[in-house]
Amino acid sequence: MWLLTICPPTVAVLGATGAVGRELILLLEQRDFPLANLKLLASSRSAGTRLPFRGEQLMVEEVSESTLAGVDLVLASAGGAISRQWAPILANHGALLIDNSSAFRMDPQVPLVVPEVNLATASRHQGIIANPNCTTILLVLALAPLQCLAPLRRVVVSTYQSASGAGAQAMEELETTSRHVLEGRQPKSRVLPYPLAFNLFLHNSPLGENGYCEEELKMLRESRKILGQPHLRLSATCVRVPVLRAHAEAVNVEFDSPVSAEAARWALGEAPGVALIEDWSNNRFPMPNDVTGGDAVAVGRIRQDLSHPHGLELWLCGDQIRKGAALNGVQIAEAVVGHGWMKPSPAPPNQDFPVLQP
Amino acid sequence: MWLLTICPPTVAVLGATGAVGRELILLLEQRDFPLANLKLLASSRSAGTRLPFRGEQLMVEEVSESTLAGVDLVLASAGGAISRQWAPILANHGALLIDNSSAFRMDPQVPLVVPEVNLATASRHQGIIANPNCTTILLVLALAPLQCLAPLRRVVVSTYQSASGAGAQAMEELETTSRHVLEGRQPKSRVLPYPLAFNLFLHNSPLGENGYCEEELKMLRESRKILGQPHLRLSATCVRVPVLRAHAEAVNVEFDSPVSAEAARWALGEAPGVALIEDWSNNRFPMPNDVTGGDAVAVGRIRQDLSHPHGLELWLCGDQIRKGAALNGVQIAEAVVGHGWMKPSPAPPNQDFPVLQP
Repeated sequence: MWLLTICPPTVAVLGATGAVGRELILLLEQRDFPLANLKLLASSRSAGTRLPFRGEQLMVEEVSESTLAGVDLVLASAGGAISRQWAPILANHGALLIDNSSAFRMDPQVPLVVPEVNLATASRHQGIIANPNCTTILLVLALAPLQCLAPLRRVVVSTYQSASGAGAQAMEELETTSRHVLEGRQPKSRVLPYPLAFNLFLHNSPLGENGYCEEELKMLRESRKILGQPHLRLSATCVRVPVLRAHAEAVNVEFDSPVSAEAARWALGEAPGVALIEDWSNNRFPMPNDVTGGDAVAVGRIRQDLSHPHGLELWLCGDQIRKGAALNGVQIAEAVVGHGWMKPSPAPPNQDFPVLQP
Repeated sequence: MWLLTICPPTVAVLGATGAVGRELILLLEQRDFPLANLKLLASSRSAGTRLPFRGEQLMVEEVSESTLAGVDLVLASAGGAISRQWAPILANHGALLIDNSSAFRMDPQVPLVVPEVNLATASRHQGIIANPNCTTILLVLALAPLQCLAPLRRVVVSTYQSASGAGAQAMEELETTSRHVLEGRQPKSRVLPYPLAFNLFLHNSPLGENGYCEEELKMLRESRKILGQPHLRLSATCVRVPVLRAHAEAVNVEFDSPVSAEAARWALGEAPGVALIEDWSNNRFPMPNDVTGGDAVAVGRIRQDLSHPHGLELWLCGDQIRKGAALNGVQIAEAVVGHGWMKPSPAPPNQDFPVLQP
């Protein structure tokens, strides 16, 4: 697999103590990532924490110019501001940044990559490759095989997003507030905007003037860029639900021409990164408990849309921390190292096309 | 209000010990329903239970020909088989059955009523009036005001349905399994098909050959009948979520011509049974915690659909036990008693039109 890996890179995980950071470290170990050295970086608040990696307890260091020196590849999941702050310094060092924040995703010079969908775009980066939003990754894994059957005309999607999307503290808060509700106490939220225990609410990212929240607009813009469909019509409603770490999505897809459920099932069954869970006789389809800790996005109950002759309905679930974030980042890193794409390319990446603003 | 109530009826609640039955009793008391006598009926298993009503502890009796004797009006929520069993006997007694089960909803002779939407159809019954499915009631409360603005072309809806829709035992099971997960134990389900704690799954009602489950087809068929739109195109994905007793729905509506979000907001703001929760500056929209124990369906985040020039997106929440079931039934009963519509009408009801099978 590691065709061109003569000199394995020194890798840093930036935001190492977060939910995604910890999963990145776990995946680098589980997948035997070819690295010379692993550095764990975070804010000063988390520096000093020790985290396990390949039988050792690695110390988390504060991110700085000196701790970044000598690093070849950074997997960052510490928020957009941190990524923006350190990206120019990494560029000076000649290091590649694979960034899980939204900071650079819509930059036309930055490839936005889901390896199963548009890996080739990762070959021509200029020092930054962006990891898409979690809901987008899960969605395009299902849409990409379908758009091989017929052009996509329109997508209407409703999400069921777990607490993990708001970080490890939100997951803890869901557990704590759930305990409080079960004890008859009034739950109070500190991390999430409202108590999520036995409750749910529309995603609270900032609202645009069009009435959509940022999370919903990310799904639109990022799906367009990844699928190479700058005019794709997509409307999302993003909802936070009291689930710990797996997202689900109800997806209604309209095509330019009729696509049978059988054809869609075949295409999705053959698609990399997708697992079909469709036990019709037992009424058994994907659920968060199936995919938690797993790699694939599970798709099921694919059916002809009764309301549209060119429509399909389907349902999917995926682990938000894993394929929705950390795993996708590690897969990008594996491909970049394995294919010898570490060095920046002077030419703009292929996906440099206008992404229409809604 | 009680224009024609000279002789208040003897009322029975059939299925008195269930989640909806208990709410029916509570609502009859809270709303000061004009009744001469209240009988609480259930299966032999629940007979002997005592439940409070107007300061007394009423004994639940086993449903039988003798316990039904003298009853004028039955509010039933004991499942379709029980309703089918007792409906002919009630007809013989000349009693009116307001039935919360799905047994008679699609019978063209039976009015299917949401009072705010199609109350007039309740005036011409033949001994049975059906209470719609919970998700349908909440949906049509929002769709009816909108179809006054322009004809509905197509509706795509995803639900977020609480445990209460599967009964009081499912609510208890959600609490128990949540405790088990929080204690690190493996949750086991007995009432619901899978553990719902920190999990969710597609509604497990029987699947049709078209790949939709019965719950989803109810939304289609019942919405058509209530709205008087036998050709309405509607596709639903019904999902059970770990919430105790309020349902939510993400609703995408296409019209025959453009409808502005402002017009929709105005129409919904004026609509009976609907409360707008739309605090854009605080990113605050309806959630289950807002509507639990309340009467109105809360609607919010009404926005122009970015993917369709004639489309709107909106979000709603309503108490499943209350407006989704018990309250709607009591409102029908109030109207029937108040308007003097207790006696069967020999003519078929107005809504006797073909309901297309999908």
